Amino acid sequence: MKLFSDGSTTSPLGFTAVSHAAGLKKDNQPDLAIVYSEADCACAAVFTKNQVVAAPVIVDRETITANPDGIRAVVTNSKIANACTGETGLLNSRATQMITAEALGISPTQVLVLSTGVIGMQLPMEKLEAGIVTAVEKLQRGGATEGWAEAQRGGLEAAKAIMTTDTRPKHIAISVELSGGTVTLGGMAKGAGMIHPNMATMLAVLTTDVQVPASQLQMMLNTAVNLSFNRISIDGDTSTNDTVLLLANGASGVGLTTEEDMQLFQSALNELCTAVSKMIVKDGEGASKFVEIQVTGAASDADAHQIANTIAISPLVKTAFAGSDANWGRLVMAAGRAGVIFDQSKLNLWIGVEQTDELQLLTGGTPTDYQEADAAHVFAQPEFMLRLDIGQGSGTSTVWTCDMTHEYISINADYRT
Amino acid sequence: MKLFSDGSTTSPLGFTAVSHAAGLKKDNQPDLAIVYSEADCACAAVFTKNQVVAAPVIVDRETITANPDGIRAVVTNSKIANACTGETGLLNSRATQMITAEALGISPTQVLVLSTGVIGMQLPMEKLEAGIVTAVEKLQRGGATEGWAEAQRGGLEAAKAIMTTDTRPKHIAISVELSGGTVTLGGMAKGAGMIHPNMATMLAVLTTDVQVPASQLQMMLNTAVNLSFNRISIDGDTSTNDTVLLLANGASGVGLTTEEDMQLFQSALNELCTAVSKMIVKDGEGASKFVEIQVTGAASDADAHQIANTIAISPLVKTAFAGSDANWGRLVMAAGRAGVIFDQSKLNLWIGVEQTDELQLLTGGTPTDYQEADAAHVFAQPEFMLRLDIGQGSGTSTVWTCDMTHEYISINADYRT
Repeated sequence: MKLFSDGSTTSPLGFTAVSHAAGLKKDNQPDLAIVYSEADCACAAVFTKNQVVAAPVIVDRETITANPDGIRAVVTNSKIANACTGETGLLNSRATQMITAEALGISPTQVLVLSTGVIGMQLPMEKLEAGIVTAVEKLQRGGATEGWAEAQRGGLEAAKAIMTTDTRPKHIAISVELSGGTVTLGGMAKGAGMIHPNMATMLAVLTTDVQVPASQLQMMLNTAVNLSFNRISIDGDTSTNDTVLLLANGASGVGLTTEEDMQLFQSALNELCTAVSKMIVKDGEGASKFVEIQVTGAASDADAHQIANTIAISPLVKTAFAGSDANWGRLVMAAGRAGVIFDQSKLNLWIGVEQTDELQLLTGGTPTDYQEADAAHVFAQPEFMLRLDIGQGSGTSTVWTCDMTHEYISINADYRT
Repeated sequence: MKLFSDGSTTSPLGFTAVSHAAGLKKDNQPDLAIVYSEADCACAAVFTKNQVVAAPVIVDRETITANPDGIRAVVTNSKIANACTGETGLLNSRATQMITAEALGISPTQVLVLSTGVIGMQLPMEKLEAGIVTAVEKLQRGGATEGWAEAQRGGLEAAKAIMTTDTRPKHIAISVELSGGTVTLGGMAKGAGMIHPNMATMLAVLTTDVQVPASQLQMMLNTAVNLSFNRISIDGDTSTNDTVLLLANGASGVGLTTEEDMQLFQSALNELCTAVSKMIVKDGEGASKFVEIQVTGAASDADAHQIANTIAISPLVKTAFAGSDANWGRLVMAAGRAGVIFDQSKLNLWIGVEQTDELQLLTGGTPTDYQEADAAHVFAQPEFMLRLDIGQGSGTSTVWTCDMTHEYISINADYRT
């Protein structure tokens, strides 16, 4: 398995992409991205579990159900989420789908739509339509005449166009050797705020050139999402638009023919999703630190996850991270309110930079004689880990989170103005 | 019913109180409070639901179970929570109980202990013992020679001594006319951070001179706590020490003899608890705004509460409050992730300063044609209300919360240093 940090949705064979400034964002910033496949794609998707879902989520669910093995394009706009926009919003998402299909010369049921940004505003359809038409012209010109290099650049540009409060684009590619040859997986994502298990304000478009039917792809994506996107938390909020799409166009000519192929591809997909998820946390709104929280020794994996997650979203824990304060009392407090029954006298806690077991802070629920300066040193690093052992069983879970800083408040107290 | 904003635990007959600087806090700040009753008290209590509980919680549960109608004193220290302190911590709480009992000339089973502050540190027992002895001398001198006025001051001073990150003491008294005469209820509390339903870093000592058995008092306190302390949220965190104690010494000679008496007393107790709860939210760490969140039209009260509560703890909602940004999209997002199934096309939302229905922002899940300036005006007030109607049934709930500001981050990123 090889990682390409400059890879993206266009790293797999047969995908091209383009970005454009359609005028939704100010100052001619790119706000429109199209990822396009030359061949029909099997498509898998995971959507937000929020009860309030944006129009594109409704449209994409319908489209994928109707045409799971024939998707060709994903069109994304940033700046406006098209959520809480009622019947008009739904019509606008359907129109976006149709405009894109027409420009590309494909069927509307081959196009998926994504939106991210402010809730409750209608899309400016004239700007968007003109933008899509221009973007498709650019896409077809670039893809046809300059080939791989241009397409590659298109993927990177697309990753920029889908950003909202993100400070940097998120993209990566992975290649893996299967029995029939090499396949490549690529992806881009946007995140920043409202990031929490069950898919937060988070869009991810993943591509691969493997040959696989949609039904199998969906199972593999579910597995990967549970190990990655559903284990990150920035502020505990979950958005109306969250979507992970995975398109497989088969352009490599390589399929998953053996059990080992399937395992290798699943590993690569897990790795892709985990890498993208970590990028999202590291670029969390105002985040200055990336923290891995491991919970072990719980009665079940579910209990462990519940505890890890409650620690990850606790404002008091996250502000302690920000203050480089190894205030384990807050970690224990958060664990105690997770809704899981345990014996506080069996808690053990370790922290570390490279691995969690470097410094033990708690033994049997009470502090060890560790030196405060050693603990503070760990919490002062840009990345560190902690492990809380519950002392009850063999359930484990790992989640990734960030600190909560002044910058988080600044970003979110002023976002719309 | 009359409210006395300068009232406290010593407003009811037969209670005296004292504070002292025992040296746990720096700069000779008071950190020890004793509330004392001349007569045996019926006692009711509600404790934290956190799995990790501080030593005083363990000791008080035992003491109240053993002696529910014979409590005489509550001794509280601030600065150190005596949580995660193991067997030593438990012995220290028991020693605090014994030292106080001996100084007062009563039995240890008549003394309750409270601690609040940093988790994981042991109490400095020499300082604490000396402080308790001195405080009891002051209490007995003041109570005996200067009577009511001194005792009243003692209640106000006690409210200061239990503060941690609180910016002001919290105390109030209420008198109510029953069929047999006047009874008085008083109380003090500390809060600030880790405030959330199910009892957060919150201590409250409530007193009354009514005659009532402990069993009846406990039912009445449960009712009042569910309408007050369990409806406030500052940061969603819940502490290891949270305790509400209610002592009734019968010194008024007035009992609850009629059904109407019981209702009147329950109302007064609800009012006392609600008033104290609101003080806690208004003094929430870094809080600049107090917000009442009403949810109506849910399928059940439980559903309504779940939605109201999820809105109240959402960092994105709370930062929107801080930014005076009427970003209802975040409210709807939070409602949607509450784990309650509803139809987004039936949501209605109103906001207002004096009453929620002043300005409707959402109808049928989409924005009305309200003016942004009008909405921003409401969100710019130090106190405002909002009401989200789910359009499903008749379930309702009200919770009180505050905004999340830069100051919250500053306080919590630096608390121990």
